[in-house]
Amino acid sequence: MELTIYLAGQIHDDWRDTVVQKAKEKDLPLTFTGPQTDHDLSDNIGENILGEQPGNYYKDDAASAINNLRTQVLMQKSDVVIALFGEKYKQWNTAMDASTAVALGKPLILIRPEELIHPLKELSNKANVTVATVDQAMEILEYIYK
Amino acid sequence: MELTIYLAGQIHDDWRDTVVQKAKEKDLPLTFTGPQTDHDLSDNIGENILGEQPGNYYKDDAASAINNLRTQVLMQKSDVVIALFGEKYKQWNTAMDASTAVALGKPLILIRPEELIHPLKELSNKANVTVATVDQAMEILEYIYK
Amino acid sequence: MELTIYLAGQIHDDWRDTVVQKAKEKDLPLTFTGPQTDHDLSDNIGENILGEQPGNYYKDDAASAINNLRTQVLMQKSDVVIALFGEKYKQWNTAMDASTAVALGKPLILIRPEELIHPLKELSNKANVTVATVDQAMEILEYIYK
Amino acid sequence: MELTIYLAGQIHDDWRDTVVQKAKEKDLPLTFTGPQTDHDLSDNIGENILGEQPGNYYKDDAASAINNLRTQVLMQKSDVVIALFGEKYKQWNTAMDASTAVALGKPLILIRPEELIHPLKELSNKANVTVATVDQAMEILEYIYK
Amino acid sequence: MELTIYLAGQIHDDWRDTVVQKAKEKDLPLTFTGPQTDHDLSDNIGENILGEQPGNYYKDDAASAINNLRTQVLMQKSDVVIALFGEKYKQWNTAMDASTAVALGKPLILIRPEELIHPLKELSNKANVTVATVDQAMEILEYIYK
Amino acid sequence: MELTIYLAGQIHDDWRDTVVQKAKEKDLPLTFTGPQTDHDLSDNIGENILGEQPGNYYKDDAASAINNLRTQVLMQKSDVVIALFGEKYKQWNTAMDASTAVALGKPLILIRPEELIHPLKELSNKANVTVATVDQAMEILEYIYK
Amino acid sequence: MELTIYLAGQIHDDWRDTVVQKAKEKDLPLTFTGPQTDHDLSDNIGENILGEQPGNYYKDDAASAINNLRTQVLMQKSDVVIALFGEKYKQWNTAMDASTAVALGKPLILIRPEELIHPLKELSNKANVTVATVDQAMEILEYIYK
Amino acid sequence: MELTIYLAGQIHDDWRDTVVQKAKEKDLPLTFTGPQTDHDLSDNIGENILGEQPGNYYKDDAASAINNLRTQVLMQKSDVVIALFGEKYKQWNTAMDASTAVALGKPLILIRPEELIHPLKELSNKANVTVATVDQAMEILEYIYK
Repeated sequence: MELTIYLAGQIHDDWRDTVVQKAKEKDLPLTFTGPQTDHDLSDNIGENILGEQPGNYYKDDAASAINNLRTQVLMQKSDVVIALFGEKYKQWNTAMDASTAVALGKPLILIRPEELIHPLKELSNKANVTVATVDQAMEILEYIYK
Repeated sequence: MELTIYLAGQIHDDWRDTVVQKAKEKDLPLTFTGPQTDHDLSDNIGENILGEQPGNYYKDDAASAINNLRTQVLMQKSDVVIALFGEKYKQWNTAMDASTAVALGKPLILIRPEELIHPLKELSNKANVTVATVDQAMEILEYIYK
Repeated sequence: MELTIYLAGQIHDDWRDTVVQKAKEKDLPLTFTGPQTDHDLSDNIGENILGEQPGNYYKDDAASAINNLRTQVLMQKSDVVIALFGEKYKQWNTAMDASTAVALGKPLILIRPEELIHPLKELSNKANVTVATVDQAMEILEYIYK
Repeated sequence: MELTIYLAGQIHDDWRDTVVQKAKEKDLPLTFTGPQTDHDLSDNIGENILGEQPGNYYKDDAASAINNLRTQVLMQKSDVVIALFGEKYKQWNTAMDASTAVALGKPLILIRPEELIHPLKELSNKANVTVATVDQAMEILEYIYK
Repeated sequence: MELTIYLAGQIHDDWRDTVVQKAKEKDLPLTFTGPQTDHDLSDNIGENILGEQPGNYYKDDAASAINNLRTQVLMQKSDVVIALFGEKYKQWNTAMDASTAVALGKPLILIRPEELIHPLKELSNKANVTVATVDQAMEILEYIYK
Repeated sequence: MELTIYLAGQIHDDWRDTVVQKAKEKDLPLTFTGPQTDHDLSDNIGENILGEQPGNYYKDDAASAINNLRTQVLMQKSDVVIALFGEKYKQWNTAMDASTAVALGKPLILIRPEELIHPLKELSNKANVTVATVDQAMEILEYIYK
Repeated sequence: MELTIYLAGQIHDDWRDTVVQKAKEKDLPLTFTGPQTDHDLSDNIGENILGEQPGNYYKDDAASAINNLRTQVLMQKSDVVIALFGEKYKQWNTAMDASTAVALGKPLILIRPEELIHPLKELSNKANVTVATVDQAMEILEYIYK
Repeated sequence: MELTIYLAGQIHDDWRDTVVQKAKEKDLPLTFTGPQTDHDLSDNIGENILGEQPGNYYKDDAASAINNLRTQVLMQKSDVVIALFGEKYKQWNTAMDASTAVALGKPLILIRPEELIHPLKELSNKANVTVATVDQAMEILEYIYK
C-alpha cells in the first residue's frame, strides 16, 4: 500500500532529505511532498509571476496566495502529514498546516524540540503523536507497514 | 440577528474587554466567547482537575487537553472568529485556532501588528480579512449590521 | 416555523423593500438579510476600514474581502437563498452567491428576466426554481407555509 | 504526482490548446478537462438527445442539464480548477463553476483581463490566486512541481 | 427538549391529523411539518405560480420543483423523519424523502403495511425502525422523552 | 479518463447487457457495476449465508442487509449513477438508490418510460437528466468524452 | 450560553443524578440527556412496541433499533458527550456512543476507573480528556464557563 | 474492481490468515489491512519509539496514540470494514473501530459469537450485516463480485 506524506515545517535545513533517505533505507513505498524549500523562491514567487507589487505587504500576500494553493493541492493528496518545528522563527505557517491537517482528518505527526514543549502544548495535544526527532517520525511510518 | 464571536489570541492584556465595551457602545447584539484568560488557571487546569502529573510535559498536556475541549465547544457555537496576534510570544495556539476556523468554514478576522506581516503572511492570506487594530475588527462586525 | 431568507442580487433598485413589504402583507414569519445595498459604502468599505490602498485593484480587493465575510456570515444563517438578476451589469457576485448556495445545500430561487434566459441557463438548471418576478418568488415562500 | 485540471470558462477562442501546449513544453504530468468547446453542440445537446423541445426556454434547460452533468463529473475528478473570463459575454456559467470549485474545496486560479477587475472583485477575492494571462496560470501549475 | 418531525408519505387520508392529535394527548413538545397535503394544490402549484406550461410533462416538472424546494427547507429543519407508505399508488416521492433522510443522517421511522414488506425490504433495512402503524411510530417518539 | 457507472434499477430484463454492449461499440472507457441481477439469488442471499430465518419478514431483512452492503460499496466507487424504472413492480429500491446518489453528490441519469412521468416527477426533478431510453442515457455518457 | 450534554454509559447506578445535582449546585446552564436508564424498559422496548419477536436475537435487535434511534436524536442535539465506564459489564454501547461522538466532532470526556486503563487505552487516547470520577468531569464543564 | 478490507478485532488467534487464505481460494481481488497483530509490539510501540514513560498509564497512552494513527491511515484507505469479536477480553478498541467505520460511512460486517448477542446488540444493529463466522463474512465479500 503506497502512501503520500506531506512534510510541513521549516525550510532552513535539509531535514526532508533525511526523511527521504531513511524511507529509502527502510524500503518503504512512500511518496513525499512539502512546501517550496527554496526560501527565496518561496518569498518571491508572487512577484515572479504576478509582477512587481506596491510594497512588501502586497508582495508577501501575492507569494502566500500561490504558496497556499500549492499546499492545498498537495495536502489534499496526502495520507499523513508530518509537521516539524525548529528552534528558530515564528513558523506560523507550520502551525497552520498542522492544524489544517487535523481539521481535515489527516493523521498528524508533530516533530518538536524539547524547548518548544510549553508553547506548542495545545497543538501537540491535537496531533496524533508528538515526537522529538525525525528518526522517531520515520519509525512511526515504518510501523504502519509492520 | 444575534451573532456569537470567538475571540482567539493572546491573553496578556485586556483587549477582550475593549471589544466587549465597543460592542456595547455600538449597541451590537453580539455574544463573545474566548479562551481562558486567567493565565495561571489555564496552565494549571490539568493538575487542578486531574491531580499532579509526572513532570512538566505531562502537566502541559493535561492542561492543553482541557483547554482544547473548551475551545472546541465554544468555537462550534460561534458565527465569526477573531484572532489577535500580539508582538510577543509564540502564540501557536492562536495560529491553531485561526486555522481551525478557516477549515471549519467559520469566517475569520485576523488582527496583526505591522511587525508580523511577513511571518503571518500565509495565515493572513487564508483569513477573510486582516486588520491591524481591534477598532478595525469592530468596524467589520458593525458593517454586518449596516 | 421562522425562516431566514438571504436576498442575493443587484442593489440598483429597491426590490428588497418590495419583498419585505409583501412578506408583511402575507403575514409570513420571515427574516430577510442580504448584501450591503448602499453601493458607495459597499465599494468603499475596504478603504473606510483599512485605510487608503495603493490603487483601484487593491481598493476593490479590500472591499470585496469585507463584503465576502459579511455574505458568508449571513448566508450560513439562512434557510433559503433568493438571487435576483437584473437586466444590467455583470452581476458576477450574484452568480457566485447563487452557486455557493447550491453547493452548500441551501434551497435556491432564481429571479431572472426573460432576456437572460440563455446566458443564465446553466445556473437556472441548478436552482430549485427559476421565476421571472419578485411576486412569484414570494408566492413560493408563502407556499412553504400552506 | 499526476494532477487533473478542469479548465472552466469561455469557449470562444482556443485558449485551452495553448494551455495543453504549454504543459507539454514544460513537461508537466497534467491531464486537462473542461466544458464542451463546440458551441453549437453545447447549445443543441439537449434537443440532440432528448428530441425537440417546446421552445427556446425548454431547449436551453435541456442542454444545460446535460452540460451540468458533464461538468459535475469532470470537476469532481479534478485537483485544480482554472476559470478564465474573457472580455465578452455574460459568462455566468464560468462564475458558477468557479464558485462551485471554491465551495467544494478545489483550489481555484482565476484568469481575468484588466477591464474586469471591478465586476469580478468578489469572486477574485475568493479564488486562491487571480492572474491576468494564461501564461501566469501555467507558471503557477509549474510551481507546484518545483 | 423540543423536536421537529417531518411527516413524509401519502396524502390521501388524514393520518397526519392522527399524529398531531396523539402527540397532543401524550403532551409531547413536538412540531410537525410535511409535504403539501392538498393534492390538487400540490399538482397545480407549478402552473399557479409560473403560468401555463407546454404540456403535462412540463406542468409536472414545474410543480415538482416547487414541492422539492418546500421539502428541502422543511426536512433540513427536522430532527426525525417519519415516512408512511400506504397500500396504493407508486409513492416514489415517499421513498425519495425517506432515502434522503437516511443519507443526511436524519433518524428515520418507516410506517409500512404488511403487504409491502417484500417490495420495501431494502428501504426498511436502511430505516432506523420499521413499524406497521401510526400508533407504533408515536410510541417511539414518546420513548425519546421517557 | 476512466469512469465507473452504477446501473441501478429493475433486474427483470437484460438492459444492462445493452448498456455494456453499446459502451463497447462506442469504445468508451467505462466500467459498469450494479445490483445483483440474479433475482432468486438476490432474494435468498440472506438465508444462503445466515441460515434459515424465522419467516419471510426476517428472510427479506437478511437479504436486504447484504444487498444494501453490496450497493453501498459499489455506489461509493461510482462516478455516475444511472437508474432505470420499468413499467412494472414497485421498484422502491431503485428510487432509494437514485435518491441516495443525489444526496451523495453523484450525478444521476434517470431512465423513465412515458407512463411514469407523473408518479416519478419529484425524483425526476432531482436527477441531473431524465431520459426515456437506454440509448439516450448512453449518448449522455458519450457526450462526457466529446 | 446554554449547553446540552449527552451522558453515555452504564445505567446500573444513579451517577446521572449526581451529575444533575452537581450542575445545579454549581448553577451551570446545562441540559442533560442520555440513554434509557430503566434497564427493563430498554431491553423490552422492541417487543413493547413491535410485538413479540421470534426469539431473543430478534427481541434484542428490535430493542436496539429503537434505542439507537433515541441516541441518534439526542446525540445530534448535544454539545458535549460524557461517557462513563463502570467496572462491570461489556459496555460496548458506551464504547460505540463515545466513538461516534469523536467521529461526529462532538467533544468527549471519558470517565474511566483505574482498572480499565489498559483495555480502554485506545478510546481514551481519542477522547478530549479522560478522568477517573464524575466530579472531575463536572469540573471540566464548570471550567467552560470560567 | 479491487477492494481494500480493514480487519478490525482481536489479535489473539490467526483469524486474519484464514481470511487471506479464503480470499485467495475464491480468487477475489482483495487487499487486507488491520491492526498490529504482534501483541507485545502493539503494547510496547509507544516506549519503543518515544522512550520510557513515567508509569503504565503513560506507556499505554503512548502506544495507543501510535496504534490509533496506524488505524486511521489504514481505515481511511479501506472500502469495507470487518470487525470480529472473540469470546474473551474487553475488545473496546474493536467496538471503537467498528463504530468509527459506521460514522465514516464505511460498510461494516460484524463477526460475533452467539454468546455476545445481547451485549453487542446496539452495535450489531448499526452494522450492515452481522454474522457468526469468518466464513460467512467471506461469502458476503464474494457476493459483491457475483
